[in-house]
Formats: sequence, structure tokens, C-alpha cells
Amino acid sequence: MIIILKPQAGEQQIRALAQQLEQRGVAIHYSQGTQESLMGLVGDTTHLDEDWLRANDIVADVRRVSEPYKLANRRFHPEDTHVQAAGKAIGEGAFAVIAGPCSVESEAQLLEVASAVKASGATCLRGGAFKPRTSPYSFQGLENQGLELLREARRVTGLPIVTEIMSETQLDDFADVDIIQVGARNMQNFRLLKELGRSKKPILLKRGLSATIEELLMSAEYILAGGNENVILCERGIRTFEKMIRNNLDISAVPVIKAKSHLPVIIDPSHAAGIAWMVAPLARTAIAAGADGLMIEVHNNPKAALCDGAQSLNPAQFDELMADVRRRVAFEGKTLL
Amino acid sequence: MIIILKPQAGEQQIRALAQQLEQRGVAIHYSQGTQESLMGLVGDTTHLDEDWLRANDIVADVRRVSEPYKLANRRFHPEDTHVQAAGKAIGEGAFAVIAGPCSVESEAQLLEVASAVKASGATCLRGGAFKPRTSPYSFQGLENQGLELLREARRVTGLPIVTEIMSETQLDDFADVDIIQVGARNMQNFRLLKELGRSKKPILLKRGLSATIEELLMSAEYILAGGNENVILCERGIRTFEKMIRNNLDISAVPVIKAKSHLPVIIDPSHAAGIAWMVAPLARTAIAAGADGLMIEVHNNPKAALCDGAQSLNPAQFDELMADVRRRVAFEGKTLL
Amino acid sequence: MIIILKPQAGEQQIRALAQQLEQRGVAIHYSQGTQESLMGLVGDTTHLDEDWLRANDIVADVRRVSEPYKLANRRFHPEDTHVQAAGKAIGEGAFAVIAGPCSVESEAQLLEVASAVKASGATCLRGGAFKPRTSPYSFQGLENQGLELLREARRVTGLPIVTEIMSETQLDDFADVDIIQVGARNMQNFRLLKELGRSKKPILLKRGLSATIEELLMSAEYILAGGNENVILCERGIRTFEKMIRNNLDISAVPVIKAKSHLPVIIDPSHAAGIAWMVAPLARTAIAAGADGLMIEVHNNPKAALCDGAQSLNPAQFDELMADVRRRVAFEGKTLL
Amino acid sequence: MIIILKPQAGEQQIRALAQQLEQRGVAIHYSQGTQESLMGLVGDTTHLDEDWLRANDIVADVRRVSEPYKLANRRFHPEDTHVQAAGKAIGEGAFAVIAGPCSVESEAQLLEVASAVKASGATCLRGGAFKPRTSPYSFQGLENQGLELLREARRVTGLPIVTEIMSETQLDDFADVDIIQVGARNMQNFRLLKELGRSKKPILLKRGLSATIEELLMSAEYILAGGNENVILCERGIRTFEKMIRNNLDISAVPVIKAKSHLPVIIDPSHAAGIAWMVAPLARTAIAAGADGLMIEVHNNPKAALCDGAQSLNPAQFDELMADVRRRVAFEGKTLL
Repeated sequence: MIIILKPQAGEQQIRALAQQLEQRGVAIHYSQGTQESLMGLVGDTTHLDEDWLRANDIVADVRRVSEPYKLANRRFHPEDTHVQAAGKAIGEGAFAVIAGPCSVESEAQLLEVASAVKASGATCLRGGAFKPRTSPYSFQGLENQGLELLREARRVTGLPIVTEIMSETQLDDFADVDIIQVGARNMQNFRLLKELGRSKKPILLKRGLSATIEELLMSAEYILAGGNENVILCERGIRTFEKMIRNNLDISAVPVIKAKSHLPVIIDPSHAAGIAWMVAPLARTAIAAGADGLMIEVHNNPKAALCDGAQSLNPAQFDELMADVRRRVAFEGKTLL
Repeated sequence: MIIILKPQAGEQQIRALAQQLEQRGVAIHYSQGTQESLMGLVGDTTHLDEDWLRANDIVADVRRVSEPYKLANRRFHPEDTHVQAAGKAIGEGAFAVIAGPCSVESEAQLLEVASAVKASGATCLRGGAFKPRTSPYSFQGLENQGLELLREARRVTGLPIVTEIMSETQLDDFADVDIIQVGARNMQNFRLLKELGRSKKPILLKRGLSATIEELLMSAEYILAGGNENVILCERGIRTFEKMIRNNLDISAVPVIKAKSHLPVIIDPSHAAGIAWMVAPLARTAIAAGADGLMIEVHNNPKAALCDGAQSLNPAQFDELMADVRRRVAFEGKTLL
Repeated sequence: MIIILKPQAGEQQIRALAQQLEQRGVAIHYSQGTQESLMGLVGDTTHLDEDWLRANDIVADVRRVSEPYKLANRRFHPEDTHVQAAGKAIGEGAFAVIAGPCSVESEAQLLEVASAVKASGATCLRGGAFKPRTSPYSFQGLENQGLELLREARRVTGLPIVTEIMSETQLDDFADVDIIQVGARNMQNFRLLKELGRSKKPILLKRGLSATIEELLMSAEYILAGGNENVILCERGIRTFEKMIRNNLDISAVPVIKAKSHLPVIIDPSHAAGIAWMVAPLARTAIAAGADGLMIEVHNNPKAALCDGAQSLNPAQFDELMADVRRRVAFEGKTLL
Repeated sequence: MIIILKPQAGEQQIRALAQQLEQRGVAIHYSQGTQESLMGLVGDTTHLDEDWLRANDIVADVRRVSEPYKLANRRFHPEDTHVQAAGKAIGEGAFAVIAGPCSVESEAQLLEVASAVKASGATCLRGGAFKPRTSPYSFQGLENQGLELLREARRVTGLPIVTEIMSETQLDDFADVDIIQVGARNMQNFRLLKELGRSKKPILLKRGLSATIEELLMSAEYILAGGNENVILCERGIRTFEKMIRNNLDISAVPVIKAKSHLPVIIDPSHAAGIAWMVAPLARTAIAAGADGLMIEVHNNPKAALCDGAQSLNPAQFDELMADVRRRVAFEGKTLL
């Protein structure tokens, strides 16, 4: 961490600040210049608050040099993490495809989709029981009944289930869910993150619509710091000025996260694109970028879907996509889970 | 709502879609063109899901003409709403100043700040007991003890208290809080919004860092739809490409929200700027833009603050700001609450 | 195009507006509703100015349904365009790699890089003679001497040359350049675009840092409308809130542009990433997304480069990248030009 | 400037880099840490290229501490600059209002608007003769005939004229224009900026739609470095994710620019809002923020305007706005020019 001092900083004030910092366990290297003077802070600065430093009268600015996350940081954990979920190890070298409807709508709908994605080779079944909707007038999900249908679909198909949690009060209800999803809008619901840290469940943490990669890693750090190492990150498109597509898939996030962190990262092309015909091209870029998996919305009858119909593939389109995914995953030297 | 049909849409398919829509209570005006054909939907389209329409094979695009929010919409509620909070009516014509520390740190700190902001003319006391922090290693607030200190500060100064809720599980603990704040990161925590809709407490709803104004109004709609009409909106800076300031205060949000909605809107210049010297100029623009109030961070000793020290005013700076605010509020023909 | 009328619009005013529009050659379909009334405009609305309509007292809003570009529009030109440049046809099915230094620095530097990229299989040589630099104190290019060196490198290697034009006054000097590049900062330099429309030279048009895809296509439309059909589009990263990388490569732009337009589109991963190690992963996603080529910065000694050293590959890294590109282009069923 | 070294940087390499830097006239302060080592560069680093440093094998990252602009920097020029334009000094303490139509359309139109804005108290007349339009099919301006009409309007009203230049080739034609405007899309047209630096004309430099404040100041630096000190900056709204307004007026840019630079800064609320009813509230915030002036679009008949009709005030609306501006400028203790 580097502190840039104001030109008028007095010697005594500088010494006082240095002393405060040394008491917090960091060593100080002081550089006096003609235009500005600097303090280089050496040691573990993870616990130092930039705002606290900025509030000091003699501090002009503060620049962090090392990352503020530790447990999620590849620097201190060079090997790739593989998250174990229902006997499948998600992470580098393997490739997972999580597929299913946006929301669970009925037994018939879910079983039809579940059987179809299983037949096409999906790794896990997704389906929303509790739906975060922008409008209070939109379908909010079947709730606990939806969870029950997901369990039934797992019994029938054998596919592990992935579903979104909305609040830390639901942890008991989600106890036998295989992978608990934290949605983009809850990426910084810190109460929820802390409780998930106390569980040992695999967590699929989606990046917020305008969250920086650093913020995503800090949210993962909340879960890791609680003692739960089973975190899978998911990039699902970011919000920009562009109007022609719903969200811009941030494909560079894959190599950046792989460089900065040891956690697996998957891509959700359905939410990024917002439209079915773009799912396949974006899925192809995800594989080429080195992602560890995909999350795809599939519906048996997209035009009757209660949510996200526009971006859902039908089973035949998904089957065609999976044939292409299989070829590409093999080309990259990976195994389809 | 307008539906743009694909060129290849067949007559029969168009008739089928029209029938489905009419069953949902909207009238259809059909315009056939050479390049594309349109359906104009007339009536209450609030409950129609755009995605459901987009998933239809013959639909090229959907454009919403009327707003998706109803209870928050000035069109159906032309008079300004005044939210009653501890005997003060926040809304058009009056001007509220909510001031206090980022986080409650100790009895001495809170009482000193509370007495100071009261003396300078603040309307309400703010202070965080539960803090949403990006890093799990940062100070997370005094929690219930912080709430207790806020109550004490209210007893001593008579100022109504404003503090942030983190989860719907805390509603009982917040029962005697005068205004419950929903933070930017929780603007789309729909479970929380629904529970707040069931209460009758005044709610201060902060705009998410990258939430559109429409999304902010839809989140207000969640609370209103639950039966709670006491919603105050708060603009606190949006995330853009600019690096020189922490967030860009979206000053146009004030006239836009005033035109679209009847709810009061206040400005938080402290979080927008992220640095103390910018609070006063931004506060001036808020008053000129027609905002109904300000939310300002004040700390008795900013350089020792456990959070947000850089953007906090000290009591003397706040007193100077209030003298200026008083002059400007009078110039606008409003009353300082 | 759809016009949404204000509720208070009088019959006479509506008739007057309709008449004005009919005189401009469009047919009107009028839909009267309870909350709002609409006018559907059918026919060629390319020449209708939205602002002119919005200024009308009775108009609440205007929504364009058909695209404002015509010559660049795939709807009216379904087959892919192949741009002929020095005997190579750039476009769907073929794959071009344009490589070379950010700026031409010396004869030795350019010839060394040119020979190296030729040996590795590049299609064209790039090199900046005139450099648009953010700072007036940065190296501004060798200017006309740089052009001369590019011609020499072409004589030696046989590679067609690509270089950036800064002003319409330079067209004579660029007469024998094989592909003229328009930089991101000049994407809306309309004087320049108009002059390029009058020439018949192949133009490589880079997307502005915050230009929408529609704006990019409108800038292409300027060149096409002048009579020059030889336009290659280039995505090079967009500006967002993310700080960890210089620009966010907008990979969805490839399928979107391919759907909306018949023009070839290439990717510049060097400028998107801003750092050398990210060039290869982004290049891989470009191929998977269906791009028609790549533009890569290569320098014989990146750490001594006068500009963009951080993002330049050295010849060995480029050679390794080309081996991978060759495999992937073949996998996609395309030919490396 | 601070250089963060890679952990594996060898002593000899560090010494070599330090030597290279010292030869460029900067002093080095070296801090060795456990996790990373730093070099603090002290002295004038304006001419040091960050990219050149980043390309060095042992450099992990580079952080600029002092600003890359010098002549535009308040640090080296503490007093406010007042730009003299036709006998009026634009800058701190005075307040200028530049008003007129988006584009010059006819003698009658221009003279009517010019007389009206003069009568209402405008400082200067604006009007576009050459128009940068997104679409090649939109009205492109009356060009040289438009310039001639502006001169005539100046003769009739005595108002200095402000009009936009499109290319450095037009400088002779613009020789007697009082203030030459550089549009947002040309903010980084460096050829144009350099030529304007060689002239002594007052320049109104508009911020690009997605240009950072630092980039705006660097573009001003181009003009100043050429020897022309007469630069007025103009904020006109930035591009963000928000869809309800055309651009987001970045009101914080005013205090930030005033802190960083000595140049005058004005606000264009017409282009920011894109709609006439928002011009007045945004103009009020500009005055409160400390801007040195406003630029307002006025048309005698907005609904017949050939461009930007939707955001133009009519003369009566402008007159009402000016009455309010006059009161507010006096309140701020400034003089209306």
C-alpha cells in the first residue's frame, strides 16, 4: 500500500502517522520528493482501511498495491480449487453444464426439461423456486413447492440440483440442495454471504450486474473467511451503455479471475445475452476463454415460460448446443463432467 | 405496449397471439406495414411480461410505452407524497437534513455527533449499527448495541433516528427506528422489500450503484404494493467510467423522479463524492435541483472514524454547511424541517 | 417508427402531424387507447429525424422500430461482404491476421517485425506512422517517414500494409496504403468518413471506446453512402466501470454485428486487454465468436517500444499464438488468409 | 510515480531500470518489502510513458501520483484563468450565457433567435454551421453560408459568435469567429487540437461523451502546449447505463475541474438532458455547482427545427430561464456577463 502525502505535511505529523501504522504491524518506507512525498507500506495490509487513511489531514491519496482478498487469492493458494458437488468435481480440467428452466413451473414442465437435459448430457439441473423479479407483479416462483419438485426431478434423473437462495433464513430449506446459487442482485447481501460461509454447501456466486471483479472476489472472500471453501464464481454479463443486447458478457473476466484466484469460474450466456439465438455463440467463447462450465436456461416450451422465455433454449436447441460443446471441450483438452 | 412482429409472421399466428392478449384484458390495434407489422396494446399492461412476449416465435421486439410501475407513478397520484416520520413531514416544500456518523462507534462518539448536528439544525440523526462492508475484514458495526446507542441519542437530543437494515429478520429489532434505511446493495433484496411493505415504517430506499431510475421506482413499488406508502427515495451517486471521483452524483435523477413519481427524493452527497471537500458543492446542487433533503456523514473525529472517514465532515464543517443550506433552502422558497 | 402521443393531444393536432408525415412518404396507423394513443409509421423512415418528432407538442416519445442504417444493413444485403485488399478477400469463411508494431520507430525495427510476422503467417502488416496520443508529450509517430518505411517493409515482405489516418487532408499521402485504418477516437470524425466514402480504398473502421454498435454501423453507413463498400469493422474493447483491465472486449459485438450487417468484423485483443498475457485468451474467444480476423500488436523488443509496449507480443510469442490460431481457424472450418 | 516490482525482480535488473530512469531526470526511492518492492519516482514524470514502464519484465504495475498535465494544472498556475472573447472575460466571478439554435437554418431564423437571446441577456450567440450528425441522412448544416449568416447576426446584434469547427482545414474560414467550439466527438481529434494550439482564438472544448476528466484536461493541454491559453471547458453530459435521459450531466465535474485546473468551465444542459423541460433544473444545478457559464439551445420554432428540436427552448422559455439565472447568479455573488 502506498500513501501519498500532501505537500504541506509536517515532519511531526508524518512521524505520528508512521507510528500508528507500525503499531498495526506494517513497515514503512518513506520517500521524500520535491513535489510529493510517499510512504510505502510493507507487510500484510489486508486489514488496513483505505478510508481511515484518506481521512488523515496529511494524506493526499492511498493506492493499494496488493489485493485486499487473501483466501480467494491465487498468490497464496496457487493450485486450482475443485468444488465437490454431489460427486462431481467442478474446476480446471473438467467442464460442467448446468441446465434447466429459469423457474420451476409445474411437475410436468420440470420433469420434461430435466429428462431432456440429462439425455443431452447436462451435469446438473438448475431451476428457480424463489425468483428475484424486478416487478412485484411478475411471477415470484413456486417457492417451497418448487424446491420439492426439484428434489423429485433429482430422484427421477439423478442430476444434482442448483437453485437460488434469497435470504439467510432459508438455509434449512436448502439443506439438501446440491449447489446453492447466490443471484447477481444478492452478491453483496453480506448477511447471506456470512451464513453461507458457516455452511459447507457448494455455493455458486453470480457476479452483480455492475460489480467489479475485485468486488466479486471480496464477496467470495466473505464465504471463504467463514470456513466454506466451496465457491464457484459465475460471470453473467455486465451493465454498460450498449443498448442492443441486455448485458455485455465480460469474457475477459475468465482469464482475469483465473490469474487472480484459484476458484472455478463458469459463464451464464443466457442471462448475458437475454435472447436465445445468442446463447450458442457466447457459449463457444466461454469454452475458448477457459471457463470451467456453463449455465444454460432450457424450457420445454419457451413461449409459454413464466419467466425468461426469450432467452431459453428448447430441448432440441439445447441438444444441438451440447453436441457442439462436447466437440469444443474435447478440443480444449478437457473432460465434460 | 407495442409488439413488433417478424416479417414472416403468419396471419393465423398473429390472430392467436392477439386472442391470448385480449384474454389478459388488453385491446389490440394492429398495423400492417411493408417492412414490419406492429401491434399496439392498449389498457393496463403492468402485469404483462415482456419476456413472455419476446419468447413468441412471431415477435421481433417489444417496447413498453407506459411505465411498469403504478403506485409509485405520478400519473395515477398527481399530488406529492409527504412521508410522516416522528412528526416531521418529508416531501415537497420542506427540506430535511439527515446527519450523523457512518457507523455508531461508541456512546461518547455518537452523543457528541448527535448533539452537534442537532445544534446545527439537522432534522434527523443517522448512524449505522449494521454495516455492509465490501471486505469481511472491515469493521462490521456494533450491531444491536449500536441500535441501543441510537435510541439513547434520540432520548438525549430528541432527533428521530435513521439506520440501515440488512435483512428481513431484523424487523422486530428495528420496530422503534423512526426511518429504516435500505442500502444501495439491498435495493433489489426483494424479500426485504416485501417485508418492509407489510410494515408501516417510513423507509429510506437508496438507489443501487448501477440501478436505473425505473428499477429504483420498481423497488419502491414492491414496498407500496405491500401496503406501505411511506417511501423516501435517495440518490447517492452512480457507477460510471470516471475514475477521479468515487461515484457520479446523478443530479438529473431529481427532476426525473419528481416528474415520474410523487415520492420524496433526497440526495446523499457524502457517498457520491467519497471525499469531504466535495460534500458542500454537491449539497448545493441538490438544493438547486429540487431535492427534498440531504443525508450527510458527520464524525467528531473523521481521521479516527472506523468507516468512511474520508468523506465525513467534522461538526464545525457541518455547521458551516448548514448555514449555507439554510440560506439556499430559503432562496428556493422552502422550509428547513 | 412509433410515435407515442401525449394524453392531451387534440384531434386537429394529430391530423396535422399525420399530414406532415404522409407528405414525407410514410403511411400512418393510428391506435387510440385509454391511457395513450400511438401512431405507427410504416414505410422508409430512415430520413425521419426523431428529434424533429420529439419537439412536437403532442409527442410524448418516439421509438424506432427499423434500423436507421440501410446500406450496412443485412436485411437489404443478405450476403456477406468480402473486402478485397491487395488480393486478399477479408470476410466470412476466411480469417485475416493483421500484425505489427503499435508505431513505426525505425527501419530496423519495422523490417525485423515485418519479417517475423510474415514468417509466422500474418496476412497484413500494421504499423502506426501518425499516432493519436492522449498526452501531447508522448511520441507522436514518425509521420510521413513512417509511411515510407511501411512501403519499404511491403516491398521486402510482400505484406499489404494497414495504417491509421488522422485527417481527411492526408488522403493523398495514403493513396497507396492497402487498408486505411480509422482509429477509435475518429469513429465519428464525419468529415474524414465522408472523404473516405469518396475513395475506394478498403477502410478498417474501429469502434469508439463508448460507441454503441448502432453508432458504429452509422459511421460505416457514412462511408458506404459515399460509394465506398470496402468497410471492415473492428471491435477493440469498450469502456466500462471495471478497473482491472483497460477495456472490456465486447465479444457479443461479433454475433450481433454479423446478424445486423453484412460487413466483415475483426477483433483487436491487444487494445482491449492492454496487457500482453491477455492477448492469447482473447484472440481465442474472437475465433470462437465468429470474427473474420484479428489485429495484434507485435514488437521486436516490447520493453523498449515507444508506445503500447505493455500490450505487445514479441515475435516468439506471436509465433506461438499463430500456431494456436491456425488450429482453431481450421476447427471452425475457415481458412487462414 | 510509483513502480511496483515483480517479486522475482533481480537486483541487477532493478539497478538497470533505476539507471535508465535517473538518466531521464527522476530520482528513485527504493522500498524493499516481503511481498513486493516499490520504486518511488520523484521529479517531473510528465514525459515518462507508463506503457514503456509496464513493458519492462520486472514491472508488475505503475501508478501515477502526480497529474500528467502541467499547463492546465492548478498546482502550477493557482490563479483562475479568464478567457477574453470579444471584450468579455469568461472565468471565475463572471457568468456567461451562450445561447442560440442547434443549427443555423436561414437568415430569418437566425436573426429572430439572435435578437431574442440578446434581448433576454445572453452573452454570446451560438449556432452550428457544420453539424456532426450520427446519420449521413440527417441535415448536415448550411456550412459556409451558415458562417456568413452568423457574421450577419453578429453585425445586427453585437453578440460575439460561437460555432463548431469540424477539421483543422477550416481554420481560415473560422478566423473571425469569436469562440471556436470543439465538439464532444472531436475532443480527441489531436490534429485539430494541435492546429488550434497554434492559433490564439478562444476555444470552447467540449468533453467527449465518455471521456474522463483527466482526458479532457489532456486535450486542453494539447491546445495550451501549442501556445494558446484561451481554453474554456464544457461539460455536456456523459454516457452511462441509465436510459431515462439521454446523457447524465456530470455535475461533480465542476468542482473537480475547478480544483484540478485554472481553466473556466461551463455547462451545456441542453445536450445533457436531450429534452427541453429538463434544461432549467439542470441550469440551476450548474450555477449552484460553481460553473462559469451555460450553453443553451434556443429555437424560434423548436418543432420545426432541423436538429435538436426536442431539447431547444423557445424564446419565451429562454427569457423566463434568464430571469431565474440572473437571480441565482446574483445569489452566488457573481456578475452576469
